Amino acid sequence: MPKSAAVIPHASLSSPFRSKSERDREREEKREAVLLAAVRMFNARGYHAASLDDVAASLGVSKPTIYHYLGNKEQVLVECVNRGLSMLREAADAAADAPGSGHDRLRAFLLRYACINMDDFGRCVIRTNEEVLSMDSATRFRARKREIDDAVRGMIADGIADGSIAPVDVRFASFALAGALNWPARWHDPDGPLRPEAVAEKLVDIAMGGLTPR
Amino acid sequence: MPKSAAVIPHASLSSPFRSKSERDREREEKREAVLLAAVRMFNARGYHAASLDDVAASLGVSKPTIYHYLGNKEQVLVECVNRGLSMLREAADAAADAPGSGHDRLRAFLLRYACINMDDFGRCVIRTNEEVLSMDSATRFRARKREIDDAVRGMIADGIADGSIAPVDVRFASFALAGALNWPARWHDPDGPLRPEAVAEKLVDIAMGGLTPR
Repeated sequence: MPKSAAVIPHASLSSPFRSKSERDREREEKREAVLLAAVRMFNARGYHAASLDDVAASLGVSKPTIYHYLGNKEQVLVECVNRGLSMLREAADAAADAPGSGHDRLRAFLLRYACINMDDFGRCVIRTNEEVLSMDSATRFRARKREIDDAVRGMIADGIADGSIAPVDVRFASFALAGALNWPARWHDPDGPLRPEAVAEKLVDIAMGGLTPR
Repeated sequence: MPKSAAVIPHASLSSPFRSKSERDREREEKREAVLLAAVRMFNARGYHAASLDDVAASLGVSKPTIYHYLGNKEQVLVECVNRGLSMLREAADAAADAPGSGHDRLRAFLLRYACINMDDFGRCVIRTNEEVLSMDSATRFRARKREIDDAVRGMIADGIADGSIAPVDVRFASFALAGALNWPARWHDPDGPLRPEAVAEKLVDIAMGGLTPR
């Protein structure tokens, strides 16, 4: 402890200067706030109509502040999309490691998948069309989506192998499930009355169970 | 027949001036060519990156020619989307009038629905996000999509009533089917090896049949 501090009673030590960890935490909080304001703007208006000026204004800061935390508009979008893809990836890894039949692991993953797609960052993954990304970003975006798709195909194949899933075409089954559970990112209203968890359960039951009477 | 024409032998009547019906047909052919070039540009690049200058250049005409036939960029998009919606509407009407159980009429409609979504104008319906349309156009777009959705719900309800479809939640079943069969508009490559009819059959069988072993 520095010599001069020793004479000040401990309780009165309230420095106007923040510690390194306080500054790091504050920086992280600000970055998160910017990212959340941006992803909601992208989802509401679409990439082209979204404006970093308006994102900045909504937070009461200047546009250079946005650049400082996240970079230019495409960099902000890429960060939003990566956040959503990481959530999907984590859910896929958790499902792969879970016990239970292929059917049960697939169902647990799809419930989470659908909920992520109705949440800010997952919604952005689905609503972002490759055409708006640079060639490099589009390639990485496609590769990361492909990883999720591979995980789904793996669970379907496991289910077919253990008898819990009918012997369907694995590739087309993954496309059909993905479509059914991506689509809420377009029609589900986050401010509407339908809870994402309830929507996910209804859609997953229908997508996995089908419409044919038993 | 005008008097002067009577003296010209009929076989040699090859006027450089086209008749009204020839001119109408030619105008219609040109309009169709412009529309098809435009919808493919929208689908390939997305609305914002698509350029009517490039559409004009691809046809060897000037941009005012495009305006002459179809109007400005938003009007061209609206015409493309309306063309796709009309195809879907016709398919829904045909299915509603067809004989057979609710299940069979729904299946026939969904096969057609999926194929239209992989075709130029249907693809444009799915790929067009409301955000790019004017408020009026967006309202009409939503109303026309809602008509298609109502038709699907009607077929599902008929199938539940006649026992050919399990007692599912009609609204969520229509959402799940639509998602599974809209999604190819994003991933199916019209120049790739997968024929739309084959993709449609695989997806409809999985979406209607589900994954659960019987």
